[in-house]
Amino acid sequence: MAVVTVLGAGMMGSALAVPLVDRGHDVRLVGTHLDRDIIDGLRKDGVHLTLRYPLPAGIGLFQLEELPAAMEGCDALALGVSSAGVDWAGRTIAPHVRADRPLFMITKGLRWTGSRLEVLPDVIAQAIGGVVQPAAIAGPCIAGELARRVPSCVVATGRDAAMLARIAELVRTDYYHVWPSTDVVGAEVGAALKNAYAMAVAFGAGLHERRGGAPGSVAMHNFESAIFAQAIYEMRLVAEHLGGRPDTIAGLAGVGDLDVTNNGGRTGRFGRLLGLGLTVEQARAEMAGATLECLEIIAVMREATRAWRASGELAALPLLDHMAAVVLDGAPVAVPFARFFGGAHG
Amino acid sequence: MAVVTVLGAGMMGSALAVPLVDRGHDVRLVGTHLDRDIIDGLRKDGVHLTLRYPLPAGIGLFQLEELPAAMEGCDALALGVSSAGVDWAGRTIAPHVRADRPLFMITKGLRWTGSRLEVLPDVIAQAIGGVVQPAAIAGPCIAGELARRVPSCVVATGRDAAMLARIAELVRTDYYHVWPSTDVVGAEVGAALKNAYAMAVAFGAGLHERRGGAPGSVAMHNFESAIFAQAIYEMRLVAEHLGGRPDTIAGLAGVGDLDVTNNGGRTGRFGRLLGLGLTVEQARAEMAGATLECLEIIAVMREATRAWRASGELAALPLLDHMAAVVLDGAPVAVPFARFFGGAHG
Repeated sequence: MAVVTVLGAGMMGSALAVPLVDRGHDVRLVGTHLDRDIIDGLRKDGVHLTLRYPLPAGIGLFQLEELPAAMEGCDALALGVSSAGVDWAGRTIAPHVRADRPLFMITKGLRWTGSRLEVLPDVIAQAIGGVVQPAAIAGPCIAGELARRVPSCVVATGRDAAMLARIAELVRTDYYHVWPSTDVVGAEVGAALKNAYAMAVAFGAGLHERRGGAPGSVAMHNFESAIFAQAIYEMRLVAEHLGGRPDTIAGLAGVGDLDVTNNGGRTGRFGRLLGLGLTVEQARAEMAGATLECLEIIAVMREATRAWRASGELAALPLLDHMAAVVLDGAPVAVPFARFFGGAHG
Repeated sequence: MAVVTVLGAGMMGSALAVPLVDRGHDVRLVGTHLDRDIIDGLRKDGVHLTLRYPLPAGIGLFQLEELPAAMEGCDALALGVSSAGVDWAGRTIAPHVRADRPLFMITKGLRWTGSRLEVLPDVIAQAIGGVVQPAAIAGPCIAGELARRVPSCVVATGRDAAMLARIAELVRTDYYHVWPSTDVVGAEVGAALKNAYAMAVAFGAGLHERRGGAPGSVAMHNFESAIFAQAIYEMRLVAEHLGGRPDTIAGLAGVGDLDVTNNGGRTGRFGRLLGLGLTVEQARAEMAGATLECLEIIAVMREATRAWRASGELAALPLLDHMAAVVLDGAPVAVPFARFFGGAHG
C-alpha cells in the first residue's frame, strides 16, 4: 500500500482513483481551481459531478488550498490536469517532487516551442528541474468506463524504465492493464494526434447525413476506415520524424487511442458538424463550452509542419494538412484520398 | 476502354462493376449457380437482389451457362466469388486465362494445406497453372457503399508489380482509390484475419448489454479498442511469420479492414451474441443462413498455429487462441488481457 496523491479531479484524474483504491492504496484526490464543485459534490454524496458516477468510498478529498496536507507523506504523485493546465501543474507540484517519488500524468498533448515539438512529460520534467522523469499514461481509456471498471489496456511511457516498472506495478489491477514503454515520443504522438484524426474520421458521419443518409442505413464506413488507416500512416511518419518508433503507433497508443476516440466524444461530434457543412464558427457555437483538443493539436501541428517543411524535412501529411485547412483556413471538407499513402496512386 | 468480365454476381463482385462502368469499360457480370436469382432480378428491373440497389445501366448480364459468350474478347477477368467457391472458380476460369489478361479477385481467406498456410491468390495461381499472377483486392470496402460510390481506398496486391499497375489503372475512379502492393502475404493476412478479430471486438457490445448496459450509455469501448490493438499486434506477428511485412498490417489491409468490419455486419453480430453469453450453437441458430467467415478462418488458424507450435515456431497469440477456444471448444468469453502485447505486463 502506498499513499498516492492525484492533482486534478476532472474525469480522468478521478477515474484513475478507482484502480488505485482497488489496488489498496491510500488515495488523495486534489481538485484544481476548476474542480471546486466536483470536490464539494464528492464530499456531499460521493458522486462525481462530470463522471455522473459515484467514486469508491475512502478517497481523501482536498480542495486546492489543502494541497500541502495532501502531499504530506505521499509516495507517488499523479497529474490529472488537462494540457492547458500543464504549466500550472508543473509549477504547483515542483516543491513536492522527489527523485524516489514516482510521478505520472494522464495529460496528453504536444507543444511547439517555436523550434521543436515537445511531448508533455518533457515539459513537466523541465518544470520540476529534472528531479524525476515523469511518466504518462497513453492508450484507449475513456474515463467513464475506467470508473466503471471496464477492462482497459494502457501504456505507461517515460524515459526511466525502472520508474515505469514501479508505476505500472502501482496502478495495475485485474481490469486496468498497464504496459511500460520507453518510447515516449511514439506513445505521445499517438495519444495527442488521435484527437485531431478522430475529427477527420467523423467527417464521414456528417457527410453521410448531409446526403440524406439515416443512422443505420448504408453509411460511409469505407470513407471512415480509409481515413483511419491514413491517420495511422501519418502518425507513424510524425513519430519517426521526432525520433520515436513507428511501431508504437500500431499499438495501444495510436491504433487503440484513435479507435476509442472514434466511439463518440466531443471530437467526433465536432468532426460530424464540419462534415455536415457547418463552418468552424458554427460548429464551435453548437458545441459552446466544450474543450476541443483537436483544434489545439491541429494548430500546434501546423506550426511544426511548416517549420519542418521550411527546412526540407518530412514527407507529405495530406490528411493533417487538410484538417488544418478546414479548421484554420475555413476550407470545405474535401478529403484528398488520392494523395493518401504516399500519393500518386489513388 | 476494356472488356472486363466479372465471375460472381454476389454483393462485392457486383459492386465492383460500378467503378468499372464509371471508368468506361464494357462490363460483363456472370452469375454463379448461386446467383441465378440475382441475374434474373437485374434483368427484370436493374436492382441487385442482395445489394438492394440498382446497378448502372449497360452492364452485360450472363447466367453461368452463358460464360463462354461473356469471355469472348475480354481484356481482363475478375473473380467475385466467396472463399468457399475459390476452387470451383479456379477450374472454371482456367480455360480463359491468358498471360496478358489481368486477373484479379475480391475473395479473401487463407487456406491450410496440412503443412502450410496459403493465400488465395496463390491457390488460384495453382488452379490456372501459373499462366498469370492473380491480384487480390484488400482493404476496407463494404460492397453496399462501393455500389453507392462512397469514397473507398483499397489495395491491389499480387506478385507481379507490372500487372498490379495495370489492374489499378483499370479499376480506379475518383471515388475508388487503389494502391498496388506486392506484399501479398501481409495484405491477405490482414484481409482474412480481420473477420476473426472483428468477432472478438464485438464481444464488448454483448458483454455491455449482458451487464445491463443500454445502447448509447457508457459502454465498453476501452475493452473493444484494447482488443483492436491486440488484433493488429497478432496480425503483424502472423504476417511476419509467413514472410510478409508487418507494416502492411498497419495500413488499409489490417487496420482499415478491421475498422470497417467493426462497423456492423455478420461477424460483429455473431461476436455480440457470444458476448451476451450464447453458446456457439445458439449464436449460429440466431444467425441461421448467414455465412460466418470468422468461423472458417479461426478453424484454419487453429490448424496452422498448432503445427507452427509443434515445430517450436511463432510467439504467443493469446487473443486468437481465446477466439478458437470460444468458437471451437465452447469456452466462455474471458479475454486474456494480461497476456496481450507479449504478456507478463497486464
